[in-house]
Amino acid sequence: MRGSTLVGEDRTDALVERMLAGDRTALARLMTVVENRAPGVADVMAKVYPRTGRAHVVGITGPPGAGKSTLTDRLIAHARAAGQKVGVIAVDPSSPFSGGAVLGDRIRMQAHFLDPGVFIRSLSTRGCHGGVPRATRDVIRLLDAYGADVILVETVGVGQTELDVMRLADTIVVVLVPEAGDAVQVMKAGLLEIADVFVVNKADRDGAVRMESELRQMLHLKPEAPWSIPVLLTQASAGVGTEAVREVLLAHRRYLAGAGERAARDAARREVELVDILDEELRRRVEAGLADAVDGVGTLVEQVRAGAVDPYSAALRILADGTALATLTGRR
Amino acid sequence: MRGSTLVGEDRTDALVERMLAGDRTALARLMTVVENRAPGVADVMAKVYPRTGRAHVVGITGPPGAGKSTLTDRLIAHARAAGQKVGVIAVDPSSPFSGGAVLGDRIRMQAHFLDPGVFIRSLSTRGCHGGVPRATRDVIRLLDAYGADVILVETVGVGQTELDVMRLADTIVVVLVPEAGDAVQVMKAGLLEIADVFVVNKADRDGAVRMESELRQMLHLKPEAPWSIPVLLTQASAGVGTEAVREVLLAHRRYLAGAGERAARDAARREVELVDILDEELRRRVEAGLADAVDGVGTLVEQVRAGAVDPYSAALRILADGTALATLTGRR
Repeated sequence: MRGSTLVGEDRTDALVERMLAGDRTALARLMTVVENRAPGVADVMAKVYPRTGRAHVVGITGPPGAGKSTLTDRLIAHARAAGQKVGVIAVDPSSPFSGGAVLGDRIRMQAHFLDPGVFIRSLSTRGCHGGVPRATRDVIRLLDAYGADVILVETVGVGQTELDVMRLADTIVVVLVPEAGDAVQVMKAGLLEIADVFVVNKADRDGAVRMESELRQMLHLKPEAPWSIPVLLTQASAGVGTEAVREVLLAHRRYLAGAGERAARDAARREVELVDILDEELRRRVEAGLADAVDGVGTLVEQVRAGAVDPYSAALRILADGTALATLTGRR
Repeated sequence: MRGSTLVGEDRTDALVERMLAGDRTALARLMTVVENRAPGVADVMAKVYPRTGRAHVVGITGPPGAGKSTLTDRLIAHARAAGQKVGVIAVDPSSPFSGGAVLGDRIRMQAHFLDPGVFIRSLSTRGCHGGVPRATRDVIRLLDAYGADVILVETVGVGQTELDVMRLADTIVVVLVPEAGDAVQVMKAGLLEIADVFVVNKADRDGAVRMESELRQMLHLKPEAPWSIPVLLTQASAGVGTEAVREVLLAHRRYLAGAGERAARDAARREVELVDILDEELRRRVEAGLADAVDGVGTLVEQVRAGAVDPYSAALRILADGTALATLTGRR
């Protein structure tokens, strides 16, 4: 059955073929498949995987209003000027209270919507029940296989989901503005641990230089590392300093390749990914098996629903029963 | 081995006994156990479960600055005046950019910290890798077993995690302020689907009445339901309208009990919970099994780490191999 899942009128294997041949519509449809976490995802990704590994994945995060989308916009333009294909993934928070601004940012990026060398996708954290990092990972892979040279992944740095998404990147850029609070807050948020590059945007405003020096001081407290984290000042809306950001990104990529760091990161990541894929499928099987009341668990599920047995005791009982467990996890 | 997990110098079964006898320190330590998702969690919860089911769980959400903590503060005071024991769970977002305000809110609640009838716990979404709703669910259960009559769970309504946390409540209060944007944004955020009660706080400000009537109009668009969602105006900081909120909460609780709605919700929830507990433990086993390279998967894991086999193909192979799967999932 591998590769033969039906999506609308198309089989996924045909979609993969068309996508690899450069068909944008096929790419968009496959993105929908992985975003919905449809049962055929692992089959699709097993086919796509051998064509991946070429793209440079750049994560861009920071507080709302820091100018992440404007910077992204400039980085797209610089990459296009260098003849590169660009993928953009914008991970939107589900909050109603920042909805307006995010939408506004997207509209700005529409200048690139008609450019065949740019593919932009929004992923919403709404309704994805913990699946956003997984969906983002697979969308990155699709863009990579499609031939993107650079993939820019933008999040608003608010929660665990967003941090998990950032960890998918090769290079992480944290964008700040003087008003975003002081460097101590950056440290508290764990951004210091993940940043490969800091950008202080809206550098014409008061406090930009102070923030820059605070960041540099904080970075001095970090243990010696072969990559020294740069702090760059930009005014992205005027295009000031954004080429320097691009150059630093390229330098970080060369550093990763040279130091063998990327290889080590990739090995660890692939193992986590294997756990994730198994976990996702096992959960699906367990859920379906319990709902169908498969042999050995039917009565127990009824007792749990009725409150006669608590879910924890029921779970412990199933986990201790090799046969029930094998029935649950072995079902396709 | 059930119940005999060691936590520091105490066995969890002793902690559960002490907690059920009213020992606050034991309660706090058990909360740490469930928050850390330690391997003994299911054992602890299986023991605690029979003592739960009495508390009224009230979720309180809304945008930053809406006055949720001030309202919570008033609701604590009203419940205490009625002789009730109160549990409070504050789910803090990991964002650095709202850190200050949240901390300030907590300090305000410290008036209740010395009251033995009030137990307040903060849970941070930072570092919990998708586990916050699970940890919150178990902390609710602990407070319930400890004897809390009302459990107030407060989140900032920003993401999927927070919506998942809200779904743990019997009654969900959405707190808005006139500045929070219009009713359309409430709808977009999915708050309309989850709210049992709307509170428009800071009702002395411009736009409060307009927001109230917008909400009422929106609620008219909902299909007929036996519970008609009230919209209340408050000035929580001055204590205006907060007793009415308490009365509405009690009314909603009576409604749930009378309509048998709570029983139906609870049955569905218990089944989801069973899936969650199984999923959490299976993931733990798979992770450990792959790391230990148990029989049948050792070579494959090495190949995945080396990039010779992609994680999707490896996962599909393990999932198709009943023996490997049983070895992985059957291990304690």
